[in-house]
Amino acid sequence: MAYRNIICSAFRDPSGPGFPAINPATGKALAGEFHSASLQDADDAMKGAEQAFQEYKNIDKDIKAAFLRAIADEISWLGDTLICRAAEESGLPVGRLQGEMGRTTGQLRMFANLVEEGSWVNAIIDVALPDRKPLPRADIRRMLVPLGPVVVFGASNFPLAFSVAGGDTASAFAAGCPVVVKVHPAHLGTSALVGGAILKAIEKTGVPTGLFSLLYDEGHDIGAYLVKHPKTKAVAFTGSFKGGNALIQLAQQRVHPIPVFVEMGSINPIVLLPEALNNRAQVLASQCAASIALGAGQFCTNPGLLLAIKSPALDTFKEALAAAIKETPSATMLTPGICENYGALSKAVLSANGVTLIAESPLVNTELKSQSVARMASVSATVFLSNKQLHEEVFGPYSLLVVAEDHAELTALVAALEGQLTATVMAEKGELQAYPELISTLTDKTGRIILNGVPTGVEVSAAMQHGGPYPATNDSRFTSVGSTAVYRFVRPVAWQDWDDDLLPDALKANNPLGIFRLIDLNWIKQ
Amino acid sequence: MAYRNIICSAFRDPSGPGFPAINPATGKALAGEFHSASLQDADDAMKGAEQAFQEYKNIDKDIKAAFLRAIADEISWLGDTLICRAAEESGLPVGRLQGEMGRTTGQLRMFANLVEEGSWVNAIIDVALPDRKPLPRADIRRMLVPLGPVVVFGASNFPLAFSVAGGDTASAFAAGCPVVVKVHPAHLGTSALVGGAILKAIEKTGVPTGLFSLLYDEGHDIGAYLVKHPKTKAVAFTGSFKGGNALIQLAQQRVHPIPVFVEMGSINPIVLLPEALNNRAQVLASQCAASIALGAGQFCTNPGLLLAIKSPALDTFKEALAAAIKETPSATMLTPGICENYGALSKAVLSANGVTLIAESPLVNTELKSQSVARMASVSATVFLSNKQLHEEVFGPYSLLVVAEDHAELTALVAALEGQLTATVMAEKGELQAYPELISTLTDKTGRIILNGVPTGVEVSAAMQHGGPYPATNDSRFTSVGSTAVYRFVRPVAWQDWDDDLLPDALKANNPLGIFRLIDLNWIKQ
Repeated sequence: MAYRNIICSAFRDPSGPGFPAINPATGKALAGEFHSASLQDADDAMKGAEQAFQEYKNIDKDIKAAFLRAIADEISWLGDTLICRAAEESGLPVGRLQGEMGRTTGQLRMFANLVEEGSWVNAIIDVALPDRKPLPRADIRRMLVPLGPVVVFGASNFPLAFSVAGGDTASAFAAGCPVVVKVHPAHLGTSALVGGAILKAIEKTGVPTGLFSLLYDEGHDIGAYLVKHPKTKAVAFTGSFKGGNALIQLAQQRVHPIPVFVEMGSINPIVLLPEALNNRAQVLASQCAASIALGAGQFCTNPGLLLAIKSPALDTFKEALAAAIKETPSATMLTPGICENYGALSKAVLSANGVTLIAESPLVNTELKSQSVARMASVSATVFLSNKQLHEEVFGPYSLLVVAEDHAELTALVAALEGQLTATVMAEKGELQAYPELISTLTDKTGRIILNGVPTGVEVSAAMQHGGPYPATNDSRFTSVGSTAVYRFVRPVAWQDWDDDLLPDALKANNPLGIFRLIDLNWIKQ
Repeated sequence: MAYRNIICSAFRDPSGPGFPAINPATGKALAGEFHSASLQDADDAMKGAEQAFQEYKNIDKDIKAAFLRAIADEISWLGDTLICRAAEESGLPVGRLQGEMGRTTGQLRMFANLVEEGSWVNAIIDVALPDRKPLPRADIRRMLVPLGPVVVFGASNFPLAFSVAGGDTASAFAAGCPVVVKVHPAHLGTSALVGGAILKAIEKTGVPTGLFSLLYDEGHDIGAYLVKHPKTKAVAFTGSFKGGNALIQLAQQRVHPIPVFVEMGSINPIVLLPEALNNRAQVLASQCAASIALGAGQFCTNPGLLLAIKSPALDTFKEALAAAIKETPSATMLTPGICENYGALSKAVLSANGVTLIAESPLVNTELKSQSVARMASVSATVFLSNKQLHEEVFGPYSLLVVAEDHAELTALVAALEGQLTATVMAEKGELQAYPELISTLTDKTGRIILNGVPTGVEVSAAMQHGGPYPATNDSRFTSVGSTAVYRFVRPVAWQDWDDDLLPDALKANNPLGIFRLIDLNWIKQ
């Protein structure tokens, strides 16, 4: 396993001392030494990316698809080597990482299919109308073209699906953009392995070597430099509210503004309606507890907030939830720092006025470090509405049940929420019709609204929307999961009165790619 | 004609002294007194807009279409009253304003058709796969929903097509967003008339009154307040580089980031290739001169830069261009301030080292004020490349011919350009094939690339892209002209496992709206 920075598909020999990867469960260093990239490395990466873009932006769509599939294949072939390194570095269970590997290769193949099919470029054709009065109409044809080099930040909580070859990278490559990855320090060796897989795919499919660079950094200098680099045309980041806002501020210092996609915190409210609680309090408690504890609560869709109206059924739900939380074994968190933060934040909330502990799991594995303890608290709606601290994300296996006095107070709770990635309603058939205002307000605040399911488990598909109003993300108009994530990295160009043989294939008169094109409000393949 | 601020479709009585509209051709005040809105007026407008949004976001698409058509009808019916007031206030000729009125009503009707047809919401449906292994897939359905209240700034150079009921307002209403307009001081009475037309359309179609407010301001306070208001969900602005950047900086002070669409300056290069010059130097000169002088050069697509390789044919072109410029009569500019700026800027450029005057029109109407004088200069590529001042927009009937020594220097010129709204190439059949790098670089820098046409005269259609890389706009991913302008004001929402009867009509199983929906990579109406 090579531990050097990768600049335009080539390993670069390091200078200066290195730093190790840490196993959060043991607190000990893992094999290998990593080296922070220099600003020169980062500059070379961006310049190489810009050069590669000149070729890659026009590359045949089938080569692009083959490249994406080759990355998926190479990652699959890493098999247990990758899974085990990721498990050691992240503390995540092997089963979860196997699932995440499937998601990662699956989304690479999904983008390959999208690119191969070709209609995603949204070609729109307005043919010339030479006889129109008072003025003739020119022939205008428009399609989406890639923006240029994209900087991707690895995400702590998805070592595979949101990092080196995760959704951001896959969608940028699909769009036609080179990628420069800033590795997350929580999974250094995993990133090196996946970086190696991308190198092999580049070699096998013959795409430009400048398409990919991989940079390590023990601090924040390289990330900041990349965000401000003039050749950077977009940035994708998934992480904390603090980190995301720091990136936004860095980007605001640029002379040329670029799109920066920052996915931050979300508390993903679940609204439990009375009839649902009456009919299935136990089942709902099991569902919620499992979703809260999944992956040690380290999902951006973790349900950190449960909203309900007080009732005997809610008491039953609360008891069942407490029992389930108490049966939740501790789990290794991603890094010692994340574990410390979780402990501090969850305890700070629990010490706030009016907040009561419902349950805390006693099942702590004392053999391992960085252990999360599942915690569940409750609070009245009045207190919740008056204390903004309680609206903030606590990253880990924690959730807060907010108890409203009545329907009106439940609606007021929803109205007081910040923007969210997801919102969930648990309701019986026919029950929702009594809550039109609540549902309308909840929809305004989220990117995905779920009925009778849990928010964790984000499907990677065409209709997925993973992105909601601030502070969930900084731009609710885009998604970081699913095939439409590709639209973050493109812009439209219109060709006016261009000769047919000089037009991109997607816009030629006889539609040589056989794609859907929008002509006179009709999506047709003619 | 009522000259009061309009708050949520109601006129508000002013307090304090007023200010007049100025006829730039005479420098004299026109009939009527206008009053700056107060911050309270602006706050009431935004709060009313947010309330109206709750109803309008779900309104039947046919009512929305009827509303857009009613605005078009009401504007048409204003007829010469509107045209004459606009001519007095803007100095623009009646013929031009008649054309602009047609464009304005035409684009309102285009958006009505788009909304009525309905497929623009880009519905994507992934049906449930309950038997999928290892995990079942939920039913996920996604469509675009409106963002909320939009603040629109009137543009000096389009009193009708880009102001009170112009493209920004029409596309925001089409998206499902209320609009609060900050009137441009260059056409106060025109704005009052058009505002009245919108009020009538609101009344006739019964849409919520909070959908529309119209605010005057002698200074900049109201605009700044609106950009920072928490209920503002998007901003659209067309104007100067300085004004646009001021808005961007104001928006960066917001707690909740919102999309701000700023269209600024552009010099819209025309590249004249050698064979085209050889074969039709005279014709090209006439075309260019007409485009440069059109509307006193006050178009965002005004060709402020001509690029060519030195040759005898270029000399012929230059002579013909000089002759045409000398035959260009002066015209009234939009405001005395714009005229002063034009004089100062064009003269500053002409006094720069290495810049030579090609021609200046002697045809100055001394009876009228705010008169533009068409000017044309030339410079060598070397000087142009070394002086950034020459790359900046000079708003008015001015253009700069940059003469390259050879093909390589012409390509270097294109590579040195900033982002542009448009780029044009004049070339003979087959000539372009010799300039692949030039064309590729030019395309990277623009939103619309034109072959053998002029950039002025922006078609309002589905395939139009009016928006290019910075500093042409701050976000090249969107357009402010054409039907896809609607996508500036929407975001996607995904419904997961929602009951069919509770879904928006666009997502229901039996497709009651009969729209195109994307299912398994196919756009179908089933």
